[in-house]
Amino acid sequence: MTASAPDARSDLPGRIMAREMAEQPAVLRRILDDGAPAIRQVAREIAARGPRFVLLTARGTSDNAALYAKYLLEIRLGLPCGLASMSTTTAYGARPNLTDVLVVTVSQSGGSPDLVASTRAAREAGAITLAVTNNPDSPLAGVSEYHIDIMAGPERALPATKTYTASLLALYLFVEGLRDGDGAAARVLPDLAAQLLARQDEVRALAARYRFAERMVITSRGYGYPTAKEAALKLMETSYIPALSYSGADLLHGPLAMVDNVSPVIAVVTDGKGGEALQPVLDRLRGRGADLVVVGPRSRVEQASAGFVLPTEGVAEEVQPVLEIIPLQLLAYEVTIARGQDPDAPRALAKVTETH
Amino acid sequence: MTASAPDARSDLPGRIMAREMAEQPAVLRRILDDGAPAIRQVAREIAARGPRFVLLTARGTSDNAALYAKYLLEIRLGLPCGLASMSTTTAYGARPNLTDVLVVTVSQSGGSPDLVASTRAAREAGAITLAVTNNPDSPLAGVSEYHIDIMAGPERALPATKTYTASLLALYLFVEGLRDGDGAAARVLPDLAAQLLARQDEVRALAARYRFAERMVITSRGYGYPTAKEAALKLMETSYIPALSYSGADLLHGPLAMVDNVSPVIAVVTDGKGGEALQPVLDRLRGRGADLVVVGPRSRVEQASAGFVLPTEGVAEEVQPVLEIIPLQLLAYEVTIARGQDPDAPRALAKVTETH
Repeated sequence: MTASAPDARSDLPGRIMAREMAEQPAVLRRILDDGAPAIRQVAREIAARGPRFVLLTARGTSDNAALYAKYLLEIRLGLPCGLASMSTTTAYGARPNLTDVLVVTVSQSGGSPDLVASTRAAREAGAITLAVTNNPDSPLAGVSEYHIDIMAGPERALPATKTYTASLLALYLFVEGLRDGDGAAARVLPDLAAQLLARQDEVRALAARYRFAERMVITSRGYGYPTAKEAALKLMETSYIPALSYSGADLLHGPLAMVDNVSPVIAVVTDGKGGEALQPVLDRLRGRGADLVVVGPRSRVEQASAGFVLPTEGVAEEVQPVLEIIPLQLLAYEVTIARGQDPDAPRALAKVTETH
Repeated sequence: MTASAPDARSDLPGRIMAREMAEQPAVLRRILDDGAPAIRQVAREIAARGPRFVLLTARGTSDNAALYAKYLLEIRLGLPCGLASMSTTTAYGARPNLTDVLVVTVSQSGGSPDLVASTRAAREAGAITLAVTNNPDSPLAGVSEYHIDIMAGPERALPATKTYTASLLALYLFVEGLRDGDGAAARVLPDLAAQLLARQDEVRALAARYRFAERMVITSRGYGYPTAKEAALKLMETSYIPALSYSGADLLHGPLAMVDNVSPVIAVVTDGKGGEALQPVLDRLRGRGADLVVVGPRSRVEQASAGFVLPTEGVAEEVQPVLEIIPLQLLAYEVTIARGQDPDAPRALAKVTETH
């Protein structure tokens, strides 16, 4: 851990979250070095069964990882995808015909009873089932035909950080495996993640901007959209600031009325087609005089009110989400500290949420 | 229009929105009396082609109508469904194989270029395409193989109201048509909608509660979840209050930290399995001392801090969303008036949003 990494001294608020954020480069390296062969094997077996449609099932932070997988599956593989509405199975007892359907359930703990129930029901309905968890011994891993271990080690902080980036990388390697790729684009991630974590002072300066904010809007498009949703969730869980996330296109369909001088906006701009598609939204926000902070490539940050430059040069757009979220995790942490709260002690969360 | 219906006098703020909310019983009746045969015919032709998956495509208010259709298709028909991530087609050029896939695009205007482009791409990729719009002459209706007209008449207010309930009813009749049902459960809706509109004074009293609110949380489960999302959008578009919507299960996975004494909560409780599945969330909110307003059956309202009783007795759960949203549209209107703003003049909206 470098000197400017998140402060993990044992007497400070947020030390558990800080420690786990700091572990991310090591976790990413472990997945690439030790986890990739098993992920590739699972992908090969599932590809051989020729799924035609993918349903992704998850909640909370894992739901944002699932959304990232949806973009990968649609763009890189051309597989139509949906995010499951779990209550149709668990509350209404729907039993769709899931022949040829791959059901991917993403859950850090693998312990939530409704995820276990809906995955069991999917398997009985003919689906190919894959669980992506941080616990190979979990009930969810047990009921699924296939399992991918995200190898993040125990996560103790209530706001999930390292399990999010680990899930993204594992899902990326899985989707690349489905198309018989080697996932080489991911190899730069551990070093770049370490570089981002070393820039906490920059994030602390940005956090001052939100210390007294009553609301925030976070927007993106394409691969960056799951990052916007996850950043909003992280900010809400730690600082309790109502942070609303919208795809850039949806923002123009209504909630833009909330922006102007009342809501600061953070835009997550991937270096690639998603960022290009977001440009008209950024121009519109600038035209309205919004307070716009960009997390993205230098050229986009320079046009904004402020920002955080991501090292995206030569990095494939589809793996950038693993990096983009890191300064936003740090931001949630720093804003919370600046507001005199403890990121390790959100008021209402239990680590394994038992929804039924 | 009754004496206590929304105030449509020509010199008052919000008169356009008021007039269009008041038209809803007549619009619903028109769809049932004049529109249903054509909808049933479209459903019969599509059912004969045996779609295996459904992708729903929409933005803004129409996206909430599409989510309602997703619940219907999964629960009533057992068809796996997804909501399309439009940028995968329009920004990234993904061309998935859509054989056996029904693509339903919902758009009030039928004019948004990205919806037209993604529907055209879906048709070229082998999908059965259906457009659900308020304009049979729209470009979207033109590129789609099938079209359903929601017959709501011109909508001039920027916050969509009558086109939302009209879309719900048209989608309900379509899904019932796919399963060869007659949609008889919907016949009670026009009269009940008129009864709800006549209770504006009750809503005005509730609105006082939110006049100075800095944020709101709206939750539901199952069929009521699209209502929660649409209510949040309506409140944000008109009053600019940041209104966050969560499924009850997702609320427990994080954002509950925001509730307590800082965020009032509105729960949309359907009379049926969705409402039952929400009960543990309501108990938890009550245990935390949240300010909880329930829109739902009398027995649930009586357990809350306050509420609005819906006439759900004998009304099938799957059509209740057409009713649930009406007091929440009125609430958005009344809160906005109470805050001295004009529901007809949101700051940034254009009626046909041109996203590309």
